[in-house]
Amino acid sequence: MSKVDIEKKILSENDSVAIENRRQFADAGLLVFNIISSPGSGKTTLLEATLDRLADKVKILVIEGDISTERDMDRVRAHGADGIQINTGGGCHLSAKMISDVLDGLGLDTADLVFIENVGNLICPSTYDLGEDIRMVLLSTAEGDDKPMKYPSIFHEAELAIITKIDLLPYLEFDVEKVGTEISVLNSECEVLKLSALKGEGMDAWIEWIMKRLEMKRAPRPAAGE
Amino acid sequence: MSKVDIEKKILSENDSVAIENRRQFADAGLLVFNIISSPGSGKTTLLEATLDRLADKVKILVIEGDISTERDMDRVRAHGADGIQINTGGGCHLSAKMISDVLDGLGLDTADLVFIENVGNLICPSTYDLGEDIRMVLLSTAEGDDKPMKYPSIFHEAELAIITKIDLLPYLEFDVEKVGTEISVLNSECEVLKLSALKGEGMDAWIEWIMKRLEMKRAPRPAAGE
Repeated sequence: MSKVDIEKKILSENDSVAIENRRQFADAGLLVFNIISSPGSGKTTLLEATLDRLADKVKILVIEGDISTERDMDRVRAHGADGIQINTGGGCHLSAKMISDVLDGLGLDTADLVFIENVGNLICPSTYDLGEDIRMVLLSTAEGDDKPMKYPSIFHEAELAIITKIDLLPYLEFDVEKVGTEISVLNSECEVLKLSALKGEGMDAWIEWIMKRLEMKRAPRPAAGE
Repeated sequence: MSKVDIEKKILSENDSVAIENRRQFADAGLLVFNIISSPGSGKTTLLEATLDRLADKVKILVIEGDISTERDMDRVRAHGADGIQINTGGGCHLSAKMISDVLDGLGLDTADLVFIENVGNLICPSTYDLGEDIRMVLLSTAEGDDKPMKYPSIFHEAELAIITKIDLLPYLEFDVEKVGTEISVLNSECEVLKLSALKGEGMDAWIEWIMKRLEMKRAPRPAAGE
């Protein structure tokens, strides 16, 4: 079997487990995010700021993916999240199987929202479905405004892109408009938000975005024929 | 063959090609760097600033690795480098074979230094030897001071770590000393430099570091028995 065949087989196995994860999430009425970005784009900081604004309104679970350390889980626990840390031990992305393996005992039925923070990597996680509802990508202003076209796959796959660390814009050369344009060329349906999780600017719009999607998820589906 | 076996086989094939690359580089008397970091840590900006200081003293070739676009090669060409852009078309790291495939016609014999800028990824490139003399890692202050322990492999493998974007330190929480300590725990032989390629602070020490290594490379080896 060639390397390409092996990769196809692994992806296909991943998809089967992702379908099962998605069914479990749906049965529990959960809205599930898969958050993807480079190391240091601010995934954990965004989760901390999100928990500070939402943890008293909705029950949030966090699944943290990292190669090593429990640091991120410790951080979000301090902001009111329950959840679990997955250490991949070198693996460059989470897989549907890694998620499946931790779902028992997480208390899915008692929760409303699940944030899965993927391993810091703008490339490999983009092709692995975990069973999420919303695949989202973060790009920090400090990373540079040339990134969507250089890392097209994740921007092509994402439903939402968040430009983070906009409080650093005065000290950087970063063209927010250019990034928005490049993302829309790659994926015309990808929504773009911009915010500073540390300073708070733009956080309201992000929280509204979540709450709107949560309402859509909770709304009873029309019965057949209606 | 299991996925682990396949990975071992690919790595072993890569090592064979890397040995051949290293022999070619040595025959041409070249000093070769393999530069690894997350997207947006400042690899290309560091190369631009390095070319501005060295291009009239030594002949520099650049091999640019990216998933997509020629943007980085265009940037370094504008600062006096010759070289070539490799697009991996989705691949998350350069391999020794990709380097080997472009060496003919690069004019190795006329050059002194080769900078290979790897694909922006702090994980996957760390285990792929390209035949370089010096594997180095960049970590920008904007990425956060918790990264060495979270991405231990590349810091364990690197001979040199450069903390970039130190001009942003006044606007960030980033403990330079903590990063130095964590790197030394992972790899006591890894040297650490810090600089701002945009503002110039720390660039002199980096240029000195290169020139010293170039002198060491050029110094005649003592004959056997001396």
